[in-house]
Amino acid sequence: MSSINRRNFLRSSGGIAIPAVLPLSGLLGNDRQQQSDLPTHPQVKFFGDGEMYEPSDYIRILAEADKTVAIAKDRYGVGGVVEALEKKFTVLTGKEKAIFMPSGTLANQLAIAVLSGNKSKVFVQETSHVFRDEADAGQSVFQKRLIPLAKEEPFFTAAQLQKTIDDMGNAEAFLTGFGAVSIENPVRRADGRMVPIHEIKQIRKYCLEKKIPMHLDGARLYIASAWSGISIQEYSQYFDTVYISLYKYLGASAGAMLCGDAAVIDQMSHLIKIHGGSMYGNWTNAAMALHRMEGAEKRFADAKKLGEELFNALNKTGRFSIQPLDNGTNIYRLTVAKNIDGKNLQIQLNQQFNIRIPRPDNNNEALISVNETILYQPLDYLINSFSKAGLG
Amino acid sequence: MSSINRRNFLRSSGGIAIPAVLPLSGLLGNDRQQQSDLPTHPQVKFFGDGEMYEPSDYIRILAEADKTVAIAKDRYGVGGVVEALEKKFTVLTGKEKAIFMPSGTLANQLAIAVLSGNKSKVFVQETSHVFRDEADAGQSVFQKRLIPLAKEEPFFTAAQLQKTIDDMGNAEAFLTGFGAVSIENPVRRADGRMVPIHEIKQIRKYCLEKKIPMHLDGARLYIASAWSGISIQEYSQYFDTVYISLYKYLGASAGAMLCGDAAVIDQMSHLIKIHGGSMYGNWTNAAMALHRMEGAEKRFADAKKLGEELFNALNKTGRFSIQPLDNGTNIYRLTVAKNIDGKNLQIQLNQQFNIRIPRPDNNNEALISVNETILYQPLDYLINSFSKAGLG
Amino acid sequence: MSSINRRNFLRSSGGIAIPAVLPLSGLLGNDRQQQSDLPTHPQVKFFGDGEMYEPSDYIRILAEADKTVAIAKDRYGVGGVVEALEKKFTVLTGKEKAIFMPSGTLANQLAIAVLSGNKSKVFVQETSHVFRDEADAGQSVFQKRLIPLAKEEPFFTAAQLQKTIDDMGNAEAFLTGFGAVSIENPVRRADGRMVPIHEIKQIRKYCLEKKIPMHLDGARLYIASAWSGISIQEYSQYFDTVYISLYKYLGASAGAMLCGDAAVIDQMSHLIKIHGGSMYGNWTNAAMALHRMEGAEKRFADAKKLGEELFNALNKTGRFSIQPLDNGTNIYRLTVAKNIDGKNLQIQLNQQFNIRIPRPDNNNEALISVNETILYQPLDYLINSFSKAGLG
Amino acid sequence: MSSINRRNFLRSSGGIAIPAVLPLSGLLGNDRQQQSDLPTHPQVKFFGDGEMYEPSDYIRILAEADKTVAIAKDRYGVGGVVEALEKKFTVLTGKEKAIFMPSGTLANQLAIAVLSGNKSKVFVQETSHVFRDEADAGQSVFQKRLIPLAKEEPFFTAAQLQKTIDDMGNAEAFLTGFGAVSIENPVRRADGRMVPIHEIKQIRKYCLEKKIPMHLDGARLYIASAWSGISIQEYSQYFDTVYISLYKYLGASAGAMLCGDAAVIDQMSHLIKIHGGSMYGNWTNAAMALHRMEGAEKRFADAKKLGEELFNALNKTGRFSIQPLDNGTNIYRLTVAKNIDGKNLQIQLNQQFNIRIPRPDNNNEALISVNETILYQPLDYLINSFSKAGLG
Repeated sequence: MSSINRRNFLRSSGGIAIPAVLPLSGLLGNDRQQQSDLPTHPQVKFFGDGEMYEPSDYIRILAEADKTVAIAKDRYGVGGVVEALEKKFTVLTGKEKAIFMPSGTLANQLAIAVLSGNKSKVFVQETSHVFRDEADAGQSVFQKRLIPLAKEEPFFTAAQLQKTIDDMGNAEAFLTGFGAVSIENPVRRADGRMVPIHEIKQIRKYCLEKKIPMHLDGARLYIASAWSGISIQEYSQYFDTVYISLYKYLGASAGAMLCGDAAVIDQMSHLIKIHGGSMYGNWTNAAMALHRMEGAEKRFADAKKLGEELFNALNKTGRFSIQPLDNGTNIYRLTVAKNIDGKNLQIQLNQQFNIRIPRPDNNNEALISVNETILYQPLDYLINSFSKAGLG
Repeated sequence: MSSINRRNFLRSSGGIAIPAVLPLSGLLGNDRQQQSDLPTHPQVKFFGDGEMYEPSDYIRILAEADKTVAIAKDRYGVGGVVEALEKKFTVLTGKEKAIFMPSGTLANQLAIAVLSGNKSKVFVQETSHVFRDEADAGQSVFQKRLIPLAKEEPFFTAAQLQKTIDDMGNAEAFLTGFGAVSIENPVRRADGRMVPIHEIKQIRKYCLEKKIPMHLDGARLYIASAWSGISIQEYSQYFDTVYISLYKYLGASAGAMLCGDAAVIDQMSHLIKIHGGSMYGNWTNAAMALHRMEGAEKRFADAKKLGEELFNALNKTGRFSIQPLDNGTNIYRLTVAKNIDGKNLQIQLNQQFNIRIPRPDNNNEALISVNETILYQPLDYLINSFSKAGLG
Repeated sequence: MSSINRRNFLRSSGGIAIPAVLPLSGLLGNDRQQQSDLPTHPQVKFFGDGEMYEPSDYIRILAEADKTVAIAKDRYGVGGVVEALEKKFTVLTGKEKAIFMPSGTLANQLAIAVLSGNKSKVFVQETSHVFRDEADAGQSVFQKRLIPLAKEEPFFTAAQLQKTIDDMGNAEAFLTGFGAVSIENPVRRADGRMVPIHEIKQIRKYCLEKKIPMHLDGARLYIASAWSGISIQEYSQYFDTVYISLYKYLGASAGAMLCGDAAVIDQMSHLIKIHGGSMYGNWTNAAMALHRMEGAEKRFADAKKLGEELFNALNKTGRFSIQPLDNGTNIYRLTVAKNIDGKNLQIQLNQQFNIRIPRPDNNNEALISVNETILYQPLDYLINSFSKAGLG
Repeated sequence: MSSINRRNFLRSSGGIAIPAVLPLSGLLGNDRQQQSDLPTHPQVKFFGDGEMYEPSDYIRILAEADKTVAIAKDRYGVGGVVEALEKKFTVLTGKEKAIFMPSGTLANQLAIAVLSGNKSKVFVQETSHVFRDEADAGQSVFQKRLIPLAKEEPFFTAAQLQKTIDDMGNAEAFLTGFGAVSIENPVRRADGRMVPIHEIKQIRKYCLEKKIPMHLDGARLYIASAWSGISIQEYSQYFDTVYISLYKYLGASAGAMLCGDAAVIDQMSHLIKIHGGSMYGNWTNAAMALHRMEGAEKRFADAKKLGEELFNALNKTGRFSIQPLDNGTNIYRLTVAKNIDGKNLQIQLNQQFNIRIPRPDNNNEALISVNETILYQPLDYLINSFSKAGLG
């Protein structure tokens, strides 16, 4: 039984009546997705940034990848698919070197630590992962003063950064040096909003003058790139170091990649070791990310395009309003017409069409995310599903 | 030639005509100030928090103190006048133990480090010395995340603290524990304004419930006490540790005292050592502070009272307005009437009356500080000086 | 083609003439090894401590394990097979709690850091992994003074520890407290030699009196247990924390488990996070270790027994002497008779019999290790192979 | 009453009969010692490295120094006598810059920290102050791995250093870089023995090749210089940084001076601040050291010469043997003839002659130190005292 048939089998055997309008071509003809990477129960999920495989799918995909090109083990992050992945990331970002890290937190913190050297002040967005979601690692282990800018905003401007630095020059009796600027883009805590490229350029210009190195927390940089149309390589050129996640949308169960100049990246192996992050074998993550990088940029572009087509179509029905956020990426604001029961819509999309959306709130609103899983179904299936769901 | 005569001699020999109205009794009969502690050129200074002796005065005062009670050396902060001073501070603050520190920065940082243990978050005023004037020691050496509250304000309220803590519970993915609250009182960067005692009590109540220890940066606690009428001991009881400066108004050239429970203070000697602050002999500072503690509270109370009498008298002239700040201590706002040249006033007070004030700005305003030096002259001399200066 | 046939196929297709004496029953009848865990090219390796799977084998074994019991994902080390594995380790060690760590270095360092608290001195074997193979993490990140005992020896005695501590009491001007004792057992840098249990008991007795907590770097504790006959649980009871590796012989590509009291282990999650070791998914390692723990103790016992039978038989031939080391575990000293070319022996064992041994040195000696792979062949096959190899 | 008469008065009034042979010229004519720096009860002390003034003497000496050249205050270590002292030390050592520190521990640790940068390994003598008397500051605050060489020996050789480094290259799985070499000279824990200059030169040669910076803990470098005849400047040229104590023999109650290249020393002010060592006024120590530096080298040379003359004379009596140590400095081994009661000798030297020596042990032996106080009496007085004491 082919994986596609098996999927149909499993789905129908699950007791879900597949609507008659569903064109089989939708399932069979979808060349936008490598067949072997489909989960055994593929589901279009309007939340999250990418597919997070269940173990059985993960193992199957790795096994198929291994059949195509034998997976080569690393040893403490050296050699094999880890090395191959690192090479791919140097090409992707245009940076001299790349290194595998167990976590984005380690990638962010070590990048900032090395870039800032013995200067304590590091400027970050108040909404950033570095400031809010790394359990104060920056202060308690890496001994930096993180200075949050732009409270509750997705980004700070070059002017705000400059003002803060100028004010500090006057305000502090004992100056300590400005070590680094770290920018997250897009910003998870700001619903995936982006830092405008012109602000990035202005900040870079200012920081070059002031000799302040810059780090990009680009955990979801693929998404920023797909939605802004600015290449990952262009984004990377405005920063000294760039971190990109391996698990948020590249399928790996964990892992991060940090890219930058050799002078910086060559210090990392030792730093990973002394912080306890040097693992014997890392290939289970690297192999998956290596496999899934193939075509990833196209998949994101396709997903964005398909999402826009879908939302345009749905907006025309008068029953939905699905709008992008300011400087937004893959997160959209869905408003369901008042005469529709949003909660019922959610249930029926799930049960009848294997499409999952977040539960609309009491205003019939929800933030929904476009990701690769949208490619699991063709446009007409998606339109049809939304149109029919919630009516009964 | 007695020191008093010598002073007169030097002053008049400087070519300054001493106004005829100056009662000699003012100089001779001032029993509010121990004669030997007078600088050789005593000057009433309406800035600063206390007398900062020139070396020749310092040496002379120490010599006289040594004659009264022989100064006993310490050895690495143990024994002698250091031990005697520590005992005095336990009485002053009502705390179990006290320990000499080379600097207020070390006292603050070690207190916060020990109180917070392995929890990273420490709440401070945005305007506080700990946050703004310790060169990021809190983060870069003591590995704490200092969280500033009440931007540009002298204090935060219990409600603000509680809201911040509640919000963090929701806002951070990885909680790290709330280690300590540090409060500076009065606040130098807020022109010496105080934290209201009812807020301190509310904060203490909340922190006791939450088991968050509290540190008082009471570098100038003598001043808070004199102006609020609340004893140093009462202030101290709301905090687990209290730091008081030895040099800002107690005459020592440097040094700080940290007071608290034995369980906390007993850890300090080792911590001072490993941070390089363990000095062989500390008696040159301890002896001076010990000597000058005698009567210090009365001197501050007298200075406050004399200042108020002076300002009341001057306010009645219509030529000056001298007003306290909200929650203020020894810093007052002086407004000179428009028909008087403020800058000339400043020059004549200095040259004719040996009274120094800060130079009024273009609005004829200045912040002036009351400190012990006001006691160098009697009220009528001071009134007379202000009345005559700036007229010619 | 079954995996066994495929193996034979591959082996013979590699041009290696399989000796006629090889009983097929050896391959087929080996019930000591779960068939699915056999590598596709099973090889008896007299080096290393266990099977380190190639990716294709790894994936296949995980897939088969998943079929038996569906592998449940963890999220940031919480839930799923990670939680299941942690529970298994609490049973194995008799400790209250266990936690998954990305590396043994992190497990060792965090255990020592928490046990020693704010005391800087930690006693370790000079030959230990903590002292020699963790890149000075103990000092540079975890801020401990590691004090090496028993230079170039596998272990220190209780008497040596006591003497060192007594001497330090006299020798150091500023005492800092004795934070912890860490013992590696068995000791990799000492050819896998063990710390005698009576010394462990004596050290424990002394440390309990002195209130010095103890950590066991039991990366290879399964091996110590198999060779000493002392259960992992008994070893564990003499220590406050115990670390056991997941990759050295349990098949995982990486990972470590740290076990101890809840009061200690409950602090670890936060510490892992701030050191950057908190990975999103850890199931690829946990699932393998969980699967391979089943029967692991029996496999080690069987391997030891089979090794002893083999070595006894070979020793009787007069052509080999294979002797255990003092306090040794799975590493033995092989001496090949002078009339045999040791290097040729090594080559023929590899090429003709798929048995790998280290290359004998110029004295015809080598250290050979017994591990699970010995179970891939029956005794007579092994005896026969050694007997025939090196003769031609 | 002049200070000299007063001394005589006090001494005789203490009930001590001054021996008739004591030439008054000895007291009056001693031009080797600035009169004002004599303690009020000058005593020749054959222990310690220099005069440690009682507060009354300290204050008097400072007062007299202030009369000659007015003492100028520093502010946070900037300006005044601190700056003047720093300039003097640059001349003394030939280094570009010097900076005042509150303690030798801070001077040593900060020098090593800056020189070693982000490399963890620092080589020290096992007997050194840095390793044994700084409470593990090196590890617990400054995050260095101190590697002790030459156990219980005063120094390590270049060959030993090289061997250790070579061995580490082989022995450690994860290299961390060799950060710095720190040498104490002379070595207090080795009875003041020196590191031979040819070893220093060899070590320097090796370290220059390996690019390993070197720090000199020259707390007592004046003593090494006086006894070896090698100038402080020559010693200094073999090291990147040099620390010299201000209190051990320069009279200050505390303080240290660190000298080196501007690139290193310019980093110190900030580091002193964040470690809590930045004190408001430091002039009480700097002024004394500045005053006492005048002629210090000559005084040490004179003391050495006078000591040698004394010991030669005493050795000829057959009643004493006073011998230098191997590579020794100002510490000598005194052996009292068996027919003399060593303990009685000690008592009588103290009571009758105001000369203090350590109590001889049961072998009638003691280590005695030559320091500046020997210059308080002329040779014939000293010979006479030893000759007469212990006879009665």
